[in-house]
Amino acid sequence: MTAAAPLNLFDYEALAQPLMHPAVWDVIVAGAADEITVAENRRAFDRLTIRPRMLVDVSAIDTATRVLGAPVAAPILIAPSGYHAVLCPEGECATAQAAGRAGIVMTAPSGSHRTIEDIAAAAIGPLWLQLYLFPERERSLAMVRRAEAAGCLAIVLTVDAPRFGRKDRSLRSENDFDWPESGNLAGLPPPTLPWFRGAPVTWADVDWLSGVTRLPILLKGILTAEDAALAAAHGVEGIVVSNHGGRQLDGVTASIDALPEVVAAAGDHCEIYLDGGVRRGTDVLKALALGARAVMIGRPVLWGLAVAGPAGVAVVLAILANELAFAMALSGRPTIADIDRTVVR
Amino acid sequence: MTAAAPLNLFDYEALAQPLMHPAVWDVIVAGAADEITVAENRRAFDRLTIRPRMLVDVSAIDTATRVLGAPVAAPILIAPSGYHAVLCPEGECATAQAAGRAGIVMTAPSGSHRTIEDIAAAAIGPLWLQLYLFPERERSLAMVRRAEAAGCLAIVLTVDAPRFGRKDRSLRSENDFDWPESGNLAGLPPPTLPWFRGAPVTWADVDWLSGVTRLPILLKGILTAEDAALAAAHGVEGIVVSNHGGRQLDGVTASIDALPEVVAAAGDHCEIYLDGGVRRGTDVLKALALGARAVMIGRPVLWGLAVAGPAGVAVVLAILANELAFAMALSGRPTIADIDRTVVR
Amino acid sequence: MTAAAPLNLFDYEALAQPLMHPAVWDVIVAGAADEITVAENRRAFDRLTIRPRMLVDVSAIDTATRVLGAPVAAPILIAPSGYHAVLCPEGECATAQAAGRAGIVMTAPSGSHRTIEDIAAAAIGPLWLQLYLFPERERSLAMVRRAEAAGCLAIVLTVDAPRFGRKDRSLRSENDFDWPESGNLAGLPPPTLPWFRGAPVTWADVDWLSGVTRLPILLKGILTAEDAALAAAHGVEGIVVSNHGGRQLDGVTASIDALPEVVAAAGDHCEIYLDGGVRRGTDVLKALALGARAVMIGRPVLWGLAVAGPAGVAVVLAILANELAFAMALSGRPTIADIDRTVVR
Amino acid sequence: MTAAAPLNLFDYEALAQPLMHPAVWDVIVAGAADEITVAENRRAFDRLTIRPRMLVDVSAIDTATRVLGAPVAAPILIAPSGYHAVLCPEGECATAQAAGRAGIVMTAPSGSHRTIEDIAAAAIGPLWLQLYLFPERERSLAMVRRAEAAGCLAIVLTVDAPRFGRKDRSLRSENDFDWPESGNLAGLPPPTLPWFRGAPVTWADVDWLSGVTRLPILLKGILTAEDAALAAAHGVEGIVVSNHGGRQLDGVTASIDALPEVVAAAGDHCEIYLDGGVRRGTDVLKALALGARAVMIGRPVLWGLAVAGPAGVAVVLAILANELAFAMALSGRPTIADIDRTVVR
Repeated sequence: MTAAAPLNLFDYEALAQPLMHPAVWDVIVAGAADEITVAENRRAFDRLTIRPRMLVDVSAIDTATRVLGAPVAAPILIAPSGYHAVLCPEGECATAQAAGRAGIVMTAPSGSHRTIEDIAAAAIGPLWLQLYLFPERERSLAMVRRAEAAGCLAIVLTVDAPRFGRKDRSLRSENDFDWPESGNLAGLPPPTLPWFRGAPVTWADVDWLSGVTRLPILLKGILTAEDAALAAAHGVEGIVVSNHGGRQLDGVTASIDALPEVVAAAGDHCEIYLDGGVRRGTDVLKALALGARAVMIGRPVLWGLAVAGPAGVAVVLAILANELAFAMALSGRPTIADIDRTVVR
Repeated sequence: MTAAAPLNLFDYEALAQPLMHPAVWDVIVAGAADEITVAENRRAFDRLTIRPRMLVDVSAIDTATRVLGAPVAAPILIAPSGYHAVLCPEGECATAQAAGRAGIVMTAPSGSHRTIEDIAAAAIGPLWLQLYLFPERERSLAMVRRAEAAGCLAIVLTVDAPRFGRKDRSLRSENDFDWPESGNLAGLPPPTLPWFRGAPVTWADVDWLSGVTRLPILLKGILTAEDAALAAAHGVEGIVVSNHGGRQLDGVTASIDALPEVVAAAGDHCEIYLDGGVRRGTDVLKALALGARAVMIGRPVLWGLAVAGPAGVAVVLAILANELAFAMALSGRPTIADIDRTVVR
Repeated sequence: MTAAAPLNLFDYEALAQPLMHPAVWDVIVAGAADEITVAENRRAFDRLTIRPRMLVDVSAIDTATRVLGAPVAAPILIAPSGYHAVLCPEGECATAQAAGRAGIVMTAPSGSHRTIEDIAAAAIGPLWLQLYLFPERERSLAMVRRAEAAGCLAIVLTVDAPRFGRKDRSLRSENDFDWPESGNLAGLPPPTLPWFRGAPVTWADVDWLSGVTRLPILLKGILTAEDAALAAAHGVEGIVVSNHGGRQLDGVTASIDALPEVVAAAGDHCEIYLDGGVRRGTDVLKALALGARAVMIGRPVLWGLAVAGPAGVAVVLAILANELAFAMALSGRPTIADIDRTVVR
Repeated sequence: MTAAAPLNLFDYEALAQPLMHPAVWDVIVAGAADEITVAENRRAFDRLTIRPRMLVDVSAIDTATRVLGAPVAAPILIAPSGYHAVLCPEGECATAQAAGRAGIVMTAPSGSHRTIEDIAAAAIGPLWLQLYLFPERERSLAMVRRAEAAGCLAIVLTVDAPRFGRKDRSLRSENDFDWPESGNLAGLPPPTLPWFRGAPVTWADVDWLSGVTRLPILLKGILTAEDAALAAAHGVEGIVVSNHGGRQLDGVTASIDALPEVVAAAGDHCEIYLDGGVRRGTDVLKALALGARAVMIGRPVLWGLAVAGPAGVAVVLAILANELAFAMALSGRPTIADIDRTVVR
């Protein structure tokens, strides 16, 4: 093993940076404004300490669980994100293959470079579609129908982006790169406006969406008990506690700090997921201890893609899953069901 | 957009510094003594985290509100401060014009370079006058009468400066610059002492002032529930929770930390304002969440003046108002009335 | 006294580093993953403040106490650790001699370079044996029997290592050094697997061990009240509150922060020990104040060995014991029995 | 005013350092061990925030108060300390003159270079004598009798030094300087041992001392409610809450953090003083708010001596007293009697 061999996700980040165009690097690592929430997402995990149990039989560790009823190898999902195609020619198809090989869910972004049909064809595991609702309902509906036809198992509706987040860091460099078009959006009815900025969406839209599809719906971007209770009342199947990786409104609560109130308000009715700052297996353990069914990872997947394409994603996923298994063993929780609130102090 | 284009108020600060004489820079950024309160004013904002609501209709955001009954475009006012004329030949007239174009209130300092009459003539929006009470009541009264005649809508009585604050940073360099005289004070009856240092003022003076003018009075510099209750009992219309930008007594509570007790003590009787450390739209949001009707900004206005005169002030004000609108959209509070205590954690 | 003369254990660390092969240094100082727990072990001590009592007769300070009934000169024990032989040809024998001269207990690691018989022969004070249970019970039993025959007074069963800790820092350099074999394990029945990784051990194993030996048993690695209560219920004589020097699962609670709940749950039934971050006499004082009977030190013993062999260990032990005596004098607790919960704030 | 003109006590420290032999600097700034308590003494002050009252008549500020019944110009005393003679040929006589001119109390150390008789002759204000009790009572009694004869008004018995503090920083350099002998101790009966290290002293000694002198006795070094209650029960007139400037036992509570419990336990029976970290007028204000009658300053006096002899001490005292007056004015507490618990948050 050489000094440069990546041992963890931070190593992947360090390896990825010099391989990227600076404008790409900036847009991926950027958070909104002063990036306080980006930093807090990490610090909040580090503030939680683990209470490990000993003398439990951990000879066999099983990270398998179910997400929306479907079996997965680990409580880790690919978060929807852009930029796959910038980092790897196969784009989201590459990521989907790595996710499938790892036995976990890929969440394809609606603005993907490759079409959802291509991604579904390449995928060898469960696929969810992230959706921004468009101002034009026929565009949104067309996307839903395509997702259904492509075999997607769930719709992840992003609800925290009624405006595009302002990432000061990236605004300084974003014009230095020639960004590719979204191939997936090209397959939709043309927009009524030259482009849309942000995705205004309300509870009425959630109800509309529930009415036009049988796919389970998850709301991504919920950070309060109030909205969690509303989500449960509106009958959605899941919630992703998320601050969009700190990329929307700077200063909002760290995801892991918001998780307990969401779980308390809606955990009996919905499955609760979390993204934002997950970098270590112990972070996954902490999120599950506080009531998450699984976590999503975003940026680390892109580090993997940048370093070694789908093989890099595979290693990133394997590192995180192995770290989780290791953390489960060393905290005396051999199965996902053994992880409860007493894990964190 | 080039790397140097200012995206936020911190960028303006960075752009302004090299354009200023070091002694001017020092006196503007200086806080009292060890500048602990200056730093705390910012840190206290950053410690507060935002609880954003989702799925609210934020297609239209309205930052408009009323201050002392008058409509304004945003809950942001120009704080009274010196140094306008050092940074821009038109001095306070330039600032007043930028404020008026932005639809907000300009608070002219009583020690302004340009006379209040000149400022009022240049102003295209509402004007308030900041007042230091002089030891000689005829001087104070003359200033009040001039403010009334000039059409000022309120008197902001500074109550936290019975002594001039000692700014160690500035004391080292203040004699390196030839400071201009106050043109406005020249229009007053001559002082009985060669100069006054600090403005001793008591509740009896507040009552006297209330008795001689029909203009609403705001007390600027209140930081405790005790004084807030007294302010309400003495019938003033408003309170500005302020530590004078950390420039008077080092070690006093950060403005935003003092706000809740002032609101609890007097919020039913007075309008509560706040200054001190406001640099981001999310800071405005947090202050309103904790009960402020509006905030005042001081130093950032001077950065704008230094960089591009009234046009610079206009951009500073536009950035902050836009950030506020953006924060309202992303926190699910489309109008000022929607901002309540639940916004902050 | 020259500037380089070591005054405290931190000085020993600084002196030791340049004397070691970098791979040896790395493996000794390393903690798991991001070394958060390593840092917390120290910070948690520093967060505790001492409440010293004055005007007590401290003309005679007595650090003597009993561990498992045996008199010792100070509440300090040698923690089990590897690497003695890498730093000093006499290996664990050297350390045992230094410990004996200091009147304290040496805990020999089961994977020692020198055999337990050699260590016992060299020892001039009480000897405990640390044990990793092997998958093969005959190997474990053989080790217990050898410990009994060699005169060991207790078995310290490590329970926090069902997997070997992953020390990212050390993984980068561990292959740069030719590590010596364990001479002690060579004296055991051959393993049924080429090597074992980690020591899976359960409460059933604890019961088995209790049944096969009359030696008192201490469980090392307990960090929760739940496990402490179980330990008491299973009848063990002692608990070592430990996170393995931060080398097993990163993010677990600092030892000193976990101590109070363990003491509350089991302090009436077991003797409670602590290791992790002890570097100053005041750290020993704090641990005893919170209910520990004694502390164990690991890495500082290795700094002593590296700097001056057994003489270095002797100085390290003397410094720490002297600092404890000094802290007892200056906090008005002349005997170990005088140290109670009121010592820490 | 030039950049180098000292504005505050930190400036004096910076000016003093290059004027001193490094070993002298080291011994003065040194704290015990890792100097955690030294740092905490300052940080604890900075953590307290001030709640200033406005619109109070502060046209006249009066810092005058009484210490043990005697009028003083400000609630600031010279703490007993060594090293005066190293920094200024007149030694403690110079400091006593500066203190007297400032209208405050000088506390002469029993190990002074100049004799207490010389100091008393030079003094132009009230003098207290700090006392370390010697193992030989006749030596202690001789010192008390000399203090009485010299007109000292109180005995400050140091109770936190049953051992000399170990200052790691200073131990590295202390032999690089030729330290002067104590002239004052030379006037005592010879010790029965070649030298004593530390001053073991118990409550019986306090009672003995009370019995042999009519001078009021203050116990310096109390940090707990328990000892404060005992002090009151033993009838002493005063307590100095002190950790010896962080120079005795590292890790003990910051003085200002220990003050409230001491005041609660003994404030009705004794006058409570404080030293440790006082550098700003606001620190004095905070200490008085929490119940101290006055503060003592140690190291800053030595900076003043080093920079300009007695004139330097005079400036240091004037800066601190002026800062206090300024802080009283800006916090709306024109007299010492107006400073109460509501000053600090």
